[in-house]
Amino acid sequence: MTTLVDVPRGLAGVVVTDTEIGDVRGDEGFYHYRQYSAVELAEKCGFEDVWHLMFHGTLPTPAERDAFVARVRPLRHLSPQLSALLPSLAGAKPLDGLRTALSFAAADRGMRPLLDTDEAERADDVLFACAIVPTILTALYRLRSGQEPVAPRDDLGYAANYLYMLTGAEPTPRHAAAIEKYLISTVDHGFNNSTFTARVIASTGADVGACLVGAIGSLSGPLHGGAPSRALAALEEIGTPDKIDSWVRGRVEGGERIMGFGHAVYRTDDPRSLMLRDVATELGGDLVDFAKQVERKVVDILAELKPGRKLYTNVEFYAGVVMEQCGVPRDMFTPTFAASRMVGWSANVLEQARDSKIIRPRARYTGPEAPQPVVLPE
Amino acid sequence: MTTLVDVPRGLAGVVVTDTEIGDVRGDEGFYHYRQYSAVELAEKCGFEDVWHLMFHGTLPTPAERDAFVARVRPLRHLSPQLSALLPSLAGAKPLDGLRTALSFAAADRGMRPLLDTDEAERADDVLFACAIVPTILTALYRLRSGQEPVAPRDDLGYAANYLYMLTGAEPTPRHAAAIEKYLISTVDHGFNNSTFTARVIASTGADVGACLVGAIGSLSGPLHGGAPSRALAALEEIGTPDKIDSWVRGRVEGGERIMGFGHAVYRTDDPRSLMLRDVATELGGDLVDFAKQVERKVVDILAELKPGRKLYTNVEFYAGVVMEQCGVPRDMFTPTFAASRMVGWSANVLEQARDSKIIRPRARYTGPEAPQPVVLPE
Repeated sequence: MTTLVDVPRGLAGVVVTDTEIGDVRGDEGFYHYRQYSAVELAEKCGFEDVWHLMFHGTLPTPAERDAFVARVRPLRHLSPQLSALLPSLAGAKPLDGLRTALSFAAADRGMRPLLDTDEAERADDVLFACAIVPTILTALYRLRSGQEPVAPRDDLGYAANYLYMLTGAEPTPRHAAAIEKYLISTVDHGFNNSTFTARVIASTGADVGACLVGAIGSLSGPLHGGAPSRALAALEEIGTPDKIDSWVRGRVEGGERIMGFGHAVYRTDDPRSLMLRDVATELGGDLVDFAKQVERKVVDILAELKPGRKLYTNVEFYAGVVMEQCGVPRDMFTPTFAASRMVGWSANVLEQARDSKIIRPRARYTGPEAPQPVVLPE
Repeated sequence: MTTLVDVPRGLAGVVVTDTEIGDVRGDEGFYHYRQYSAVELAEKCGFEDVWHLMFHGTLPTPAERDAFVARVRPLRHLSPQLSALLPSLAGAKPLDGLRTALSFAAADRGMRPLLDTDEAERADDVLFACAIVPTILTALYRLRSGQEPVAPRDDLGYAANYLYMLTGAEPTPRHAAAIEKYLISTVDHGFNNSTFTARVIASTGADVGACLVGAIGSLSGPLHGGAPSRALAALEEIGTPDKIDSWVRGRVEGGERIMGFGHAVYRTDDPRSLMLRDVATELGGDLVDFAKQVERKVVDILAELKPGRKLYTNVEFYAGVVMEQCGVPRDMFTPTFAASRMVGWSANVLEQARDSKIIRPRARYTGPEAPQPVVLPE
C-alpha cells in the first residue's frame, strides 16, 4: 500500500513538479519568466515576444517574431458558430461567459486529448485558445453593454488590438504601451491555484480546452486574487486624502483586509506593483497622485498596527489605477488579467504534457467507522 | 520564506485533506461512501438514497426520501436557453459537449461564488447541476444520432429515467435495476484526479459550476480511467474463446496494457468488478459468459507473466458488459459514468467549501539561472 505522507494544509510549500517556465522569489521581490526578469521583459519587449518566450523558451529573432505574429494574429477571429453563441452569454458574469465560450470553441474545434497529440498539434491548440480569448472577452463586454462586438485587427499589436476591440477606437500609443506592460507582467506568476488546476487536468492527458477551462474556473474564485477592481473601489471609498488615516485604521481594527495590500508569497515590495506605479506615474493624473498618497499612508499604518507582517501593495493596487487611466471598464479588470494569464497557463499545460505521471493525491478518511450495515431508516 | 517540501511524483500518497465522504482501501478490495460499503448500498438502495447520503451524511427516512425526490426530479428539465444551445454541441465529443453545456447552465443561472454563499444556496446549486447532467448527456446523444431529445419523466427513478431519455422507451425493471447498481457503484471513489480538480477549484471560493466543469475536463483525460468501452472493444477484438490465449500473450509481450485489468489503488479484486460481474451474470447471455472466460484466462496469464503485480479486472471490464446488456450505446459509457460521478464531485465541493484554505502548492524552478539580461535577438 502507498505510504501516506502528511504535508502542510493547502499543500503550502509542497513541490509538485519541476518547471522551467519561471519562478517567484518572495523574499527578494523578484519573479521571472524562463531566465528573464518579468519586469525587464515588460519594459523591453512586446507581448508577442514574451508569448513566444513562454512557449518556445527563447525570445524570438526578428524572423521568428514575424513568423509568430503572422501565425497568431489571424487566429484572433472567431468562428461563426462561436460568434453566434456569444449573445446568449451576454448576461453572464465575464469569467463565466469566457469559461463557457472557450469550452465551446475547444469542443467545436474537436481538440484531441494531449495524450494523443504531438507537440505541433498541442502548439496549434494553445495558440488558438490564447488568440481567441481577447476577442471573446471584448465581444462579451460589448454585448453586455448593448454594443456590437468589434472584429479584431491583424495590423495591431496584442494590447492595441485588445483596447481597440474593447472601445471600438484605436488607442493612443501611450495607452497601448501601458496596457502591454501590464499584460506582460501578469502572464505568469509561479504555481498559483489556476496554474496548478491547469496542470492537474493536463496530467490526465485531457485536451487543452479542458485544462484552460478549468483554470478560468479557478481564477473566478474570490480567494485566487487578481481582482484589481476591489483596490480601485477602496480608493474611491476613501475619496479624499484627509480620510485615509481613519478609513485604514477603521478597516484594520475591524479585522478587515485592505484590498491591494499583502501577498501570499511576497514579503517585500511586489515587483509588479513597483513597475505599474511607474507606468501609472508616467500616464499621470489625479488618480495616481491620490493612489500614491494612500499607498504611503497604508503601508505606514500597517507597519504600525501589524508589525512584522511586511504588508506592501500587491499587483492589484496599481493595476487598477493603470487600467482606469487607459479606459478599461471596471468589470473588465479581471478578464483582462485572464487574457494574459492564458499564455502562462498554456505554457504550463505544454510542459505538463511532457510528464506522463497523473497527479493523484490522497485524502484521509475521518468520518464514522466503516462499514456500518446498510439499513434504510423507516 | 515557506520551506519547500519534496514529495513523491504525482503527489502519490500525499494527504491533501481530511474527508468524511468516503475512502478506498486498496489492499482490502473495499470502498465506502460515508460509513457504508458502496457495494452494499448498490445492492440495497436507490440512486436517490445514495445521493441523499452523499450530500447529507445520512440515508433518508421515507419522508426525507419523498422530499428529496420531490425536490430533485423537477430539476431534471432543461431551460429553453440550454435546450437551444445543445444542437450546436451535437458534433462535439460527449464530455466536451457536457463540459460546455454545464458551464453554460451555471453561467446562465448566475451561480455565485462558494465564498459568498451559505450551505442552502450551495445545496441548490449542486442539486441543479447533478439533476440536469443526465438530461444534457442523453439529449446530446440523441442529437448526435439524428434523433429528437426526450424530455425527462418525473415519475421514473434516476436510472429508469436515464435509460428512458436515452432510448425513448421505458426500460425493463431488470435493466433499470442493473444500471442503477452501476451508477451507485461509481458515485465516488476516493481522491481521484477529477475529484481533486473539483476541490482545488473549490478552494478558491469559485462557484459550483467552475468546480464541476473542471472535474468533467479532468475525466475526459485518457489517463483518468473510466472508459469501459475500451474493455468491451478488447472483448470484441478477441472474438472467440480459442483466441484468448494468443491475444493476451501477444499484448503483454508487446508491452501493452490489457484494458479492463489492473487499478491504481486495488491490489486485489476490484469490488465494483465483483458486483458488476454478478449483475451481468443475472442479466445473462453470451457476452457475459465470454467475458468470464476472458477474465479467468487473463488473470491467470497476467499472474504467470507478471508475477507479484496482482492484476485483476477493474470496474471498466464488467461495466462495459452491463451497459451493453442494457442497451447503452458505446459512446455513452463514459458519459454515463460522468452522470453518477457528478454526485461524488458535488459532495466533495460542498465539503471543500467549509475549508477556508486555498490549495496552492509549489514548483521547483530547474531552468537556466535567472535573471539573464533581456536582449532581443537581432
